[in-house]
This record gives sequence, C-alpha cells and structure tokens, in this order.
Amino acid sequence: MTKPQIKPERLLADLQQLRRFGEYKSGVVRPALSPVDMEARRWLRERMLAASLDAHIDGVGNVIGYSGKQGPTLLMGSHTDTQPEGGWLDGAYGVICALEVCRALQECPETTQMSVDIASWSDEEHTFHGFLGSKSFLGLLEPDVIRTATNADGHSLEQALFDAGLNGVPHRYQPDRYIAYLEPHIEQGPRLELSNKRLGIVTGIVGCRDYDITFTGEANHAGSTPMELRKDAGMAMVDFIGQLNRRFQQLAGQFTVWTVGRIDYFPGAACVIPGQAIMRLQFRDTSQGQMNVLEQALRQLVDTFSSHSGFPVTVSRESITDAVTLDRQVQSCLQEAAEEHYPEQWQSLPSAAMHDANMFAPVMPTGMLFVPSIKGISHNLAEDTRESDLITGCQLAAYAAARIINEAT
Amino acid sequence: MTKPQIKPERLLADLQQLRRFGEYKSGVVRPALSPVDMEARRWLRERMLAASLDAHIDGVGNVIGYSGKQGPTLLMGSHTDTQPEGGWLDGAYGVICALEVCRALQECPETTQMSVDIASWSDEEHTFHGFLGSKSFLGLLEPDVIRTATNADGHSLEQALFDAGLNGVPHRYQPDRYIAYLEPHIEQGPRLELSNKRLGIVTGIVGCRDYDITFTGEANHAGSTPMELRKDAGMAMVDFIGQLNRRFQQLAGQFTVWTVGRIDYFPGAACVIPGQAIMRLQFRDTSQGQMNVLEQALRQLVDTFSSHSGFPVTVSRESITDAVTLDRQVQSCLQEAAEEHYPEQWQSLPSAAMHDANMFAPVMPTGMLFVPSIKGISHNLAEDTRESDLITGCQLAAYAAARIINEAT
Repeated sequence: MTKPQIKPERLLADLQQLRRFGEYKSGVVRPALSPVDMEARRWLRERMLAASLDAHIDGVGNVIGYSGKQGPTLLMGSHTDTQPEGGWLDGAYGVICALEVCRALQECPETTQMSVDIASWSDEEHTFHGFLGSKSFLGLLEPDVIRTATNADGHSLEQALFDAGLNGVPHRYQPDRYIAYLEPHIEQGPRLELSNKRLGIVTGIVGCRDYDITFTGEANHAGSTPMELRKDAGMAMVDFIGQLNRRFQQLAGQFTVWTVGRIDYFPGAACVIPGQAIMRLQFRDTSQGQMNVLEQALRQLVDTFSSHSGFPVTVSRESITDAVTLDRQVQSCLQEAAEEHYPEQWQSLPSAAMHDANMFAPVMPTGMLFVPSIKGISHNLAEDTRESDLITGCQLAAYAAARIINEAT
Repeated sequence: MTKPQIKPERLLADLQQLRRFGEYKSGVVRPALSPVDMEARRWLRERMLAASLDAHIDGVGNVIGYSGKQGPTLLMGSHTDTQPEGGWLDGAYGVICALEVCRALQECPETTQMSVDIASWSDEEHTFHGFLGSKSFLGLLEPDVIRTATNADGHSLEQALFDAGLNGVPHRYQPDRYIAYLEPHIEQGPRLELSNKRLGIVTGIVGCRDYDITFTGEANHAGSTPMELRKDAGMAMVDFIGQLNRRFQQLAGQFTVWTVGRIDYFPGAACVIPGQAIMRLQFRDTSQGQMNVLEQALRQLVDTFSSHSGFPVTVSRESITDAVTLDRQVQSCLQEAAEEHYPEQWQSLPSAAMHDANMFAPVMPTGMLFVPSIKGISHNLAEDTRESDLITGCQLAAYAAARIINEAT
C-alpha cells in the first residue's frame, strides 16, 4: 500500500505566506479578529478552496474547509490568531499542517477518497474570549459571551465581529460529523528537545487553576512605625510564598508546575508599609486528583498562616480548567505510525499548555501531535522549530490521519 | 519672673479655622498652591497682621510674619499644605502654635520685647517639589526647579505659581537674621503614646535611603516550563527578601526601620514566569554610620546572592537623605523648660519623618518639639491629637522660645 506523501516545500511555503500577515521582527502580531487576522483568514479560505475544499468563514471567524468526500470524516485544525506578540508557528503550524495532510491524502491513490475537514478556530489566544471558535463550533459557547466579552482595550467582541464583516454570517455547529479531532501543534516547552526526540504524541492536557490570594495588614508611615508595631502585608506574603514553595515541592509530581506570576502591593509607595498584598498563583498538573491535593494543601496553608500570623488571608479561585485525557485509540494510531516510520524518534508526553483540543476532548475522540520548540520558547517573537521537524511532524500527521480514517471505515 | 502664657482657646480656634480650608471628612485636602491652599495662606497672613507682624506671602507661597522688635530673633514655623488626603494637624499645628507663641510673648511683660518671626513654608509635602518654601528661603533651591517641577497630574510649578498670583512676587531669603529655628509638630508616630508622654524633644531626624533592586531571570510559559528549568525572577526575589530581613534584624538598632513598599513582576501575567522582578527598598536610621552599615550589608547580600543563585541582581540607589542631628543648645532649652513645667511628661526621641527642619539644621541651630499622635496615625484623614496635648505643646514652645532668646541676649 502506498502512503500519503506530503510536499515539504508546499507546507513551508504556506507557513511562510501565512507568517507575512502581521509579521513583526521574527514573530507575528495577529490578534483575533483584527484586520490583519481577517486578511489571513480570507487568504486561508482561498488556500482551502484551491485544495478542493468547500471553505467558509463562519460567524465567529472560524475558517472551515469541508471535504466533499463520503465516509467517515476526520477533523484537523488549530488556530491562526496569535498572542499580542506571538511566535510565527504556535497554532499556525497545526492549521497549515492540516491543509497539507488534506492535500497529501487527495494526491495519494490509496487515500484519495478519505474525508478530512480542516479548520482554523477563532480567538484561541483569548483576545476577546479564549477558545471562542472551537466553543462556538461545539455548541459550548456561554450565551452572553458575544454580547459581553471585551479585549484588553475595552473594545467589545460584538463590535469586532461587526467590523470584521461577520455580522449576520451563520455560526457553524457540526460536532456529529466527525470520527475524531486531530490537532498538530508545536510543543511550546523543552521536553522533546531535552530528550532529543522529533515527535511528541500527547497523552493528555494539564489542568490549570488560578487563585488570587489577598493578605491584609495595616498601611502606615514607613518612617515612623517601629518594626515591632508593623502589620506589613507584603512581608507576610513573602513569608507565605516561602512556605507554599516548600509544601508544593513535597507534593509535586513529575508534571506539577506552579507560578506566582503577579504581585501587587497597596498602596505600593516607597514610604508606605503595604496594607494589602495580592498574589496570583497558578498551578497545573496532568491529574485531577493531584490538582485537588494541591488545592487542599493551599487552603490548609492559608488557614494555618492566617491563624498563626494574625494576618487575614483570603483565597479566591479565579479560574479552573480540568485536566484532559486524550483518546487512546487516536494515540495508538499516532504511535503505530511513528513506530513504523520514525522509530526511536518519538515519545509520549502530556501537553503543559491548553489548546482547542481541550474543547474537543469531552465531545469526540481527540488527539494531538507535537513537534519540538527550539529551547522550549513560545508565546514569544523568538519561537521557532527546525524545518526538518516541521516536515516530519506533518508527514506523521498524514500517516496517522490515514490510519484513523482506515480504522473507522 | 512671669512666664508667657498661651491662650488655649485662641490656639484651638485658629487651628479649627485653618482646618476649614479644604476640610474633607475628618481630615483636610489642601495641596500646595491649590486655590484653597492660597485662601488659607491669605487668611494666615491676616492673622499674622492682627498679631502685629509685618506679614507677606513671598514668590513661592511662603507666608512670613516679621517681628518689628529689636534684638536676637527666633524663627518658628512649619507648613500648612497637606498630602493629597491629609490630617488636619500635621504641619498646621506647628504654624498656629508659632503664631500663638508669638502672641503670648507679646502679651507677657517679661517677654514682650522678644523678637519672633513665624512662617508657613510652601509645599513641604511635595505636591510639586518637597521643601520648596524652606529651600527657597534658605537659598537652597536648585536653579531649574521652578521651571521643571510638575505635580502628579503633570501641571507645572511655574503655571501653578502664576495661577496663584505669585508671578513677579519677590522671594524671601534671609537666613542670617536668626539665632535659631524652632519647629513644633505632631509626632506622626506612636512612640510618645506608647511611653505615655505628652511632649517629645527631638534629638535628630532619621536619614532615609531608597533603592531599586532588580532581579533578572527568564520569562517563559508557566505551563510548559518544568520547575527545574525555570529562572523565576520573582521567586528569586522572594528568597532574597527573606535573607535581607534576617540580616537587617541582626544589624538593626533601636531606630532602624526598613520597608519593601513596592514590588513589580514583569510581564506580570498569571501564565508567564516572571522574567524580571523589581523591589523598592527603603531604610531609615538616626545614625549615618548605621545607614552605611545597612547599605554595605545590602550590597554584600546582593553580591553573594547574585553569584550563588545565578540570577543577575542590580542595586540602584534612588534617593538619599542624610540623618540630621538637632542643635544641643536648643534641645537644652526645651528640656529645661519641660523639666521645670512638665516633669516626667516628656522624653527625648528622634523624628522618624522628615520636616522643614531638615533644611534648616545645616544652616542654623534648629530644634523640634513633638506632641503625641493618637495611635501614631498620620498622613491619613484619621490623624488626631488630644486637645490637652496640643495646648501643652504650645505652652512648652512658648517657655522654650523665651529661654532660647534669653540665652542669646
């Protein structure tokens, strides 16, 4: 049996063409629904049409290319919007990879009748509302999001959709059409590079919980208040972070990470003892159980600290994303194809970042495939992946796509 | 010998009248050179004229009342401008206290020929430029301040002086006229109240040094960067603050205080490991030697931390105010008067806040007298002092003023 063969130069040329929309230094600035993002979407639709797909931009900006083929249909895709200053690959790689897989399957006699739809989901990066496009497509969008969401400048999603010419354009919603969703992506972390592998088969996506933890003391004159009379909320928080680190180090599993990404002191002046201090804590893990253990430890620490130190401390959970396990059968298809064509060059690993795949996993069998990120850098203008890895990843995706469809037939 | 006797009701009535200019809740909003501050200054000038002083508002807004008497002249005063939201007493107490001392000396046959000038210095609180008035009066104002200083809203000092009608009004500059400067003030700290004293004789004013300390790590994805590969500048800073606290606790003298009043993480997002963290450290002490010891310890800690942790750390000294020792002879006059009239009710102590007296101390014999602040609260709408303490402080100032002039005669 012949196998679908991707055309590396076509893959790379499309990636480079997409990069020009919003190109900035070595990266890309292409926030969702901005004029340049819409330009990129119209270009992508043209590329899909040229690949004989029935392509549409839907009412939230999703670009979806439907295959006209019969039989079980695989959905592949990712996103083409970027962070405020993003890398050139991120989601773009998955979208162009899907397009090339689609073309390669058509060009191979053995797979030419296989049905693959491809998509670029809108606003994965949360310019207005994270996962807007995949949520909308799956019927998971909360009813008032379009009316209420705004970007960091306070501009409304509703107006942005209107400005993008999407007013009155129907939303697409067809989750029942698919046997599976497959999302290729760059790793955005250093694990593949560190273990010297070229391909990552994703076992699951870490869950993530965010907390604001507020310490209340007493603001006072930084000169005339003796040390022994101070209720310095900032110093209390610094002590607490030390305790938190020691406790989480004891509890951490292989994939546990935690981050204090932001600290605010109030009033925040050189000459005033902080009366209030707020920290943003985030932790992630591949296991829901482990996330619960960490949250319980956090709350115990806060209770103990609060009662021993005399500083009132409050914890509010700001967001929660459950850990996701990806489909075992889709993983098997990826693993078998990898073992056949790239033995010793792949590994299984969890995704430490979230993806549109988070939305799909509860709805249909979902898989992800990673290529290495140089130095693990992502969400950064310096983000990059070796060309040979981009090509290998796409070729594996083509082999795996054929296997997935074959097994469903 | 009869002694000058203040009139408590006149002192309190003037304080209450001054309070009405910019009264806000239990405090006062009277920033330097604002319309309401200028109204208060014109009212004060009238009160000085009524006390037979030759009173002027000078080109930076100082209100100065000159005595027409012969012989050695004592200068007394403080400031009537406030913080953005200030207490009703702060500098206002010292100004009205000086006015009442002046009147009391005139009304007492034994002291009626004594010469006391009084003043309200402009912008002690740094609306445009801290100590503007006292610096100008002493010829210490840097040449480009009036042209370049602005307030927090970006309005220029030059325009504010013009709007206040002070354009072309001469600046007063007469430091050679005086035998001494005496500034009564509220303590703005809790020490008198804690030791149950009603009068504080100030030995010196603490020095103050401010530093920005910058930790450089590597910003990265808070999900996909394993703990062992992180260079988290925020966590490094938290560790450092713990070390700093332990070291400074070892070195601290009776009057040492230190404060981390502000922390900034960059980029400061929940999902990004801080690549840079900056803390503002301030410490104060009564002794220059001790300040040098603290600075040396800080720099050693930074060097050691930097070389052991692998995080580059830089220290920049943002401001420095030398500790000031107040005049021993002026202190003696205050102490003798206190011991005679209020034995057991006074103590010597340093000032932990800065005052116009900081400007005067290097130029002429300078003394300060404190009355207690309830709960040590100041720079706050809740600032207050018991009426009986306001009266006692003013009476002691009158006794001491007579002694100071007497000794110089």
